[in-house]
Amino acid sequence: MLGARGGWQALRRCASLPRAVRLRVRQALGAREPADAVRVQGWVRSVRSQKEVLFLHINDGSSLESLQVVADPSLEKRDLTFGSAVEVQGKLVKSPHRMQNMELQAEAIRVVGPCDIWSFPLKMKERHPLEYVRQFPHLRCRNNTLGALLRIRSEATAAIHSFFQDNGYVHIHTPIITSNDCEGAGELFQIETPGEAKESAKKTHFFNVPAFLTVSGQLHLEVMAGAFTHVFTFGPTFRAENSQSRRHLAEFYMVEAELSFTESLQDIMQVMEDLFKTVTSTVLSKCPRDVELFHKYIASAQKGRLEQMLKHKFMIISYSEAVEILKQAPQTFTFKPEWGCDLQTEHEKYLVNHCGDVPVFVVNYPYDLKPFYMRDNEDGPQHTVAAVDLLVPGVGELCGGSLREERLPFLESRLQRLGLTDSYQWYLDLRKFGSVPHGGFGMGFERYLQYILGVDNIKDVIPFPRFSHSCLL
Amino acid sequence: MLGARGGWQALRRCASLPRAVRLRVRQALGAREPADAVRVQGWVRSVRSQKEVLFLHINDGSSLESLQVVADPSLEKRDLTFGSAVEVQGKLVKSPHRMQNMELQAEAIRVVGPCDIWSFPLKMKERHPLEYVRQFPHLRCRNNTLGALLRIRSEATAAIHSFFQDNGYVHIHTPIITSNDCEGAGELFQIETPGEAKESAKKTHFFNVPAFLTVSGQLHLEVMAGAFTHVFTFGPTFRAENSQSRRHLAEFYMVEAELSFTESLQDIMQVMEDLFKTVTSTVLSKCPRDVELFHKYIASAQKGRLEQMLKHKFMIISYSEAVEILKQAPQTFTFKPEWGCDLQTEHEKYLVNHCGDVPVFVVNYPYDLKPFYMRDNEDGPQHTVAAVDLLVPGVGELCGGSLREERLPFLESRLQRLGLTDSYQWYLDLRKFGSVPHGGFGMGFERYLQYILGVDNIKDVIPFPRFSHSCLL
Repeated sequence: MLGARGGWQALRRCASLPRAVRLRVRQALGAREPADAVRVQGWVRSVRSQKEVLFLHINDGSSLESLQVVADPSLEKRDLTFGSAVEVQGKLVKSPHRMQNMELQAEAIRVVGPCDIWSFPLKMKERHPLEYVRQFPHLRCRNNTLGALLRIRSEATAAIHSFFQDNGYVHIHTPIITSNDCEGAGELFQIETPGEAKESAKKTHFFNVPAFLTVSGQLHLEVMAGAFTHVFTFGPTFRAENSQSRRHLAEFYMVEAELSFTESLQDIMQVMEDLFKTVTSTVLSKCPRDVELFHKYIASAQKGRLEQMLKHKFMIISYSEAVEILKQAPQTFTFKPEWGCDLQTEHEKYLVNHCGDVPVFVVNYPYDLKPFYMRDNEDGPQHTVAAVDLLVPGVGELCGGSLREERLPFLESRLQRLGLTDSYQWYLDLRKFGSVPHGGFGMGFERYLQYILGVDNIKDVIPFPRFSHSCLL
Repeated sequence: MLGARGGWQALRRCASLPRAVRLRVRQALGAREPADAVRVQGWVRSVRSQKEVLFLHINDGSSLESLQVVADPSLEKRDLTFGSAVEVQGKLVKSPHRMQNMELQAEAIRVVGPCDIWSFPLKMKERHPLEYVRQFPHLRCRNNTLGALLRIRSEATAAIHSFFQDNGYVHIHTPIITSNDCEGAGELFQIETPGEAKESAKKTHFFNVPAFLTVSGQLHLEVMAGAFTHVFTFGPTFRAENSQSRRHLAEFYMVEAELSFTESLQDIMQVMEDLFKTVTSTVLSKCPRDVELFHKYIASAQKGRLEQMLKHKFMIISYSEAVEILKQAPQTFTFKPEWGCDLQTEHEKYLVNHCGDVPVFVVNYPYDLKPFYMRDNEDGPQHTVAAVDLLVPGVGELCGGSLREERLPFLESRLQRLGLTDSYQWYLDLRKFGSVPHGGFGMGFERYLQYILGVDNIKDVIPFPRFSHSCLL
């Protein structure tokens, strides 16, 4: 037996450089003091060889900025090229350049992994278009824009978890495989074992019942809201829509929350707005340079928009008011606005614009337009439910929410009319045992990223541009 | 238009009590000072009506403990029963009872949602066995044990995200739907659209290629580790195993991490151990009462074990040493221990016990036992790879990791021998462009929860006891 921590020497293969303090590029760039024996590892983003001096830029993904390395030309090697992986040891010193704080004076450079630059699809100092790098799903993370995107995505993910945790929500992993289709809407993916797929005539199922990929965790969250009052989930959801569009993915992430003892849409909208603003502020303060890259090269108008958005309360209009605004619009729509019809993308765009290009809550939609679980407003001839959509400039619908129908008789009669009573017996059951007014909402995570960064194609805000034939890794 | 925040009164339905400060039960119990106008909402966990006084216990899921409400018997109502949802308004005062800090003197009690106690499967003050409540997937979260479990699960989730974020890892959402089967191991679930399933003879696919549910995010993380050096994912993974066992689920969560510029298994094991200890310490300090419930009623030996585990370094033995220990064991095994064969559950149990019932790392497994991506140790006749498994008392294998084969010639020849070169062209590609020594590991989240809480059946550490016919919600 090697014993606790015994035998380490046997496990550790010899490193070719003597030990020095290992720093990430971000740490090196942000260091307050010079340091003597520093080791930095990363990939070469540029090589510039001059008569007297060799300049390298090293990036390790910890920040958008690379660390400048200054070396004696004698340290140059044949395989020290763009794209190669290196370990540099030396002295961290104040940089004479205004644009960066620190630089590394190299004493030793080791090429850890060479790069076949002739077949490497990324080229030094070239700003590749997003369409180009999307062709290389296994390499595009080494592109600046995608690197920035993934750091932002990571920070936004952490900020979402923190927001809910700080506000006393319990996180729930709602099922991915389910026999439930939530709204009865949307195209579902079905799960089979490969054996079943071949013998599907037999109609035997791994789970005994047909099983699908979840389209929403809402109903499961409602179960949990019957015990915890504040719950959230943040996980993958699926729609088998033809996803060649710039706005849809077959697999995307959704943030969903449910709140019990909530008698007003205001409470739901307040959480939506707080979540949106808190996460956005956190991302802006944690990744300023990464966000700047998008606002500089991808969507220049977005920066001002976000600043406005963070300063002001979101607007609220009712669905009925929205239809009136659309009817009085000077422009002609492809779909004529009419009370009782869905708002189309063109309508949403007009409304957001009409309200001054700020996020707008639209509340109280027609009863017949919305799923069975939304709460009846019982409000006369123009019969509505307590539903809310959040529309944002450029993206359209970003969040949707509602109060849920907590009253057993209302829910029973609605499910009966829809012929769904048998499937939702357990959902009706929840209304028999201490049912309370409650509501919740969902926010598409990729749409959120598209909005704050001004990214046109939704495939460019996910880690892998999957779901087109050649790219499904 | 209602304008920003205009029209709230119209949206907010009248609440039947005048406004007071709304407190969660946890906040009320932890309050330092008495307070006059307080409102608490939750579900009734007990009702005790005496001649002079009415006692209630109210729980809202924010803590295991309920808040005691003391009321005048005149406030009693017919539907104020166990399981009903109530809103209580009154004065928060110091409790005369040693066991709790504060109690609520009720001035008004409103039954928000009555409970049909005759058909409600949970009974007042009864300690229902886990097998019993598992039959009611939509109601069992209102049971104390499951409530505690879900709060612990939520805190552990947050602690895992924090651990990686604090250590500079980038979070990656690795694909759920993939054409990749990672190790070529494990039973896969296939994805079809319902139309395809019916006409599977046609062999057309939504994604043009057969698509599966992910069994691991490792290979995708390796892509990202080629740009970010430290990455992690924490998401659902799937195995179409017959899941009637106490140890397996078809859908479970995995924490996975990859580290670049890592030349030693020690670095991987250090992260595994740090993760394990940090998350466990956080859970113990954030949910002491919830954990105590498990250690009191479910697994009494677990408390001492965890304390031991947190104090000491984990043990390390090599696979070869493990086989020697097993060969010298005084007991007879069903599977005879032999160099080159997999360690069976009985072997793992013996090893953990032999080492003093502490977590044990087993390193350097036979080359032929492990998947193609593990790094060749090139170590003579007993040929091994740099793989590590973490075995823990009671559960067996909790984590698995390895150094990955970063050397193109080694990987090429191994894939060729396995006839996998075509499928893994992109994986080989990664080794051509700045390939670096790297490694990583995965930890099953449910197994982790089973271990720290001493829960026997894995179905009792997930939010919904799905994947048995009657329970697939």
